[in-house]
Amino acid sequence: MKTKGLYCFRTFLLVLFFLGFQDCVQGRLLAVSKPDRDDAAAYARWLVSQNTWGILNTLSSELEGAPFGNVVSFSDGLPDKGTGIPYFYLTTLDPTARNALKDQRSSLTISEYPLGTCGKADPESPVCAKITFTGSLGLLDAKSKEAEFAQTALFTKHPEMKGWPKSHNFQIFKLEIKDIFMINWFGGPKPLTVEQYLDYKM
Amino acid sequence: MKTKGLYCFRTFLLVLFFLGFQDCVQGRLLAVSKPDRDDAAAYARWLVSQNTWGILNTLSSELEGAPFGNVVSFSDGLPDKGTGIPYFYLTTLDPTARNALKDQRSSLTISEYPLGTCGKADPESPVCAKITFTGSLGLLDAKSKEAEFAQTALFTKHPEMKGWPKSHNFQIFKLEIKDIFMINWFGGPKPLTVEQYLDYKM
Repeated sequence: MKTKGLYCFRTFLLVLFFLGFQDCVQGRLLAVSKPDRDDAAAYARWLVSQNTWGILNTLSSELEGAPFGNVVSFSDGLPDKGTGIPYFYLTTLDPTARNALKDQRSSLTISEYPLGTCGKADPESPVCAKITFTGSLGLLDAKSKEAEFAQTALFTKHPEMKGWPKSHNFQIFKLEIKDIFMINWFGGPKPLTVEQYLDYKM
Repeated sequence: MKTKGLYCFRTFLLVLFFLGFQDCVQGRLLAVSKPDRDDAAAYARWLVSQNTWGILNTLSSELEGAPFGNVVSFSDGLPDKGTGIPYFYLTTLDPTARNALKDQRSSLTISEYPLGTCGKADPESPVCAKITFTGSLGLLDAKSKEAEFAQTALFTKHPEMKGWPKSHNFQIFKLEIKDIFMINWFGGPKPLTVEQYLDYKM
């Protein structure tokens, strides 16, 4: 009987183990633990390296200059080797790439909420971090070393991209960051320069 | 022994049951099933009613007119009684509300990805729906019937808002939709007019 009880307990643990590790909604194992919220550079780099998508905002050439947000996937490097620089794989079939080729002003906004690490906080709460990078969205020279690096970074985090139709002419874009707005606690945006952000070693 | 086996199986089922119903990442039980992807109005209204947050984009008066995205919570009505019109609870301590008061041009972008209903599709894939509403972000008169309705809609979906500091002077904003861009399958954006979207009965 003791053995049966133990067997049952083991089954229970096994179920917990496998359920904990399965893909649940979009949850995934976070490879790097959440940094101290007072270390702004560490927190920002963590948010960027752990997230795989965000909203890329451009100025709409078709809608009277309105700010146009679009859901995009990005990568800042290989998993756990992020550079902090967001790269994108975009096609001019989509307004975002078309807008950027006319006016590079853009921003990328990322939320901590989908990572599932905000506890019960509301997505708008300062307790659930949000970051906006404002800068220039530029097309990379397809033959450059940086484009080669960016493509590996993108395809590693987004394997589906490898199979996207050649006829859609996807190209690699980079956000050159000029300003960082991050809120990850009460008290307004955390002071963080682009240099502090990029120089941080993960 | 059969009883023990049954007991063990019941424990197993109980564990599955509770794990399935707990808050997992940001997953939650979806009250309304996902509509047919060819019914553009139904799909768009479903996306808006089921999501509770998105990226609200304004033109930055502080960053040379750049498009500035910000993570915000919204509500379009009581759960399962959505109107399709997104309402927000914003403070001018944040750039988004300040920008909107200077230039109303804005957009709200919502992804299906965090709902967990995209299967294994990449967030940028057309299989995982994305919607952008472009229009005017305006402040509601706090004493109007619409503001009263919007506050109830917001506080019901975001109970935390009730306790947000009075000193921050949160106010209710509304996005008056002028254009809809939705991709929810291959073949480019789905044709959908604002009238078709708003007139749809859920």
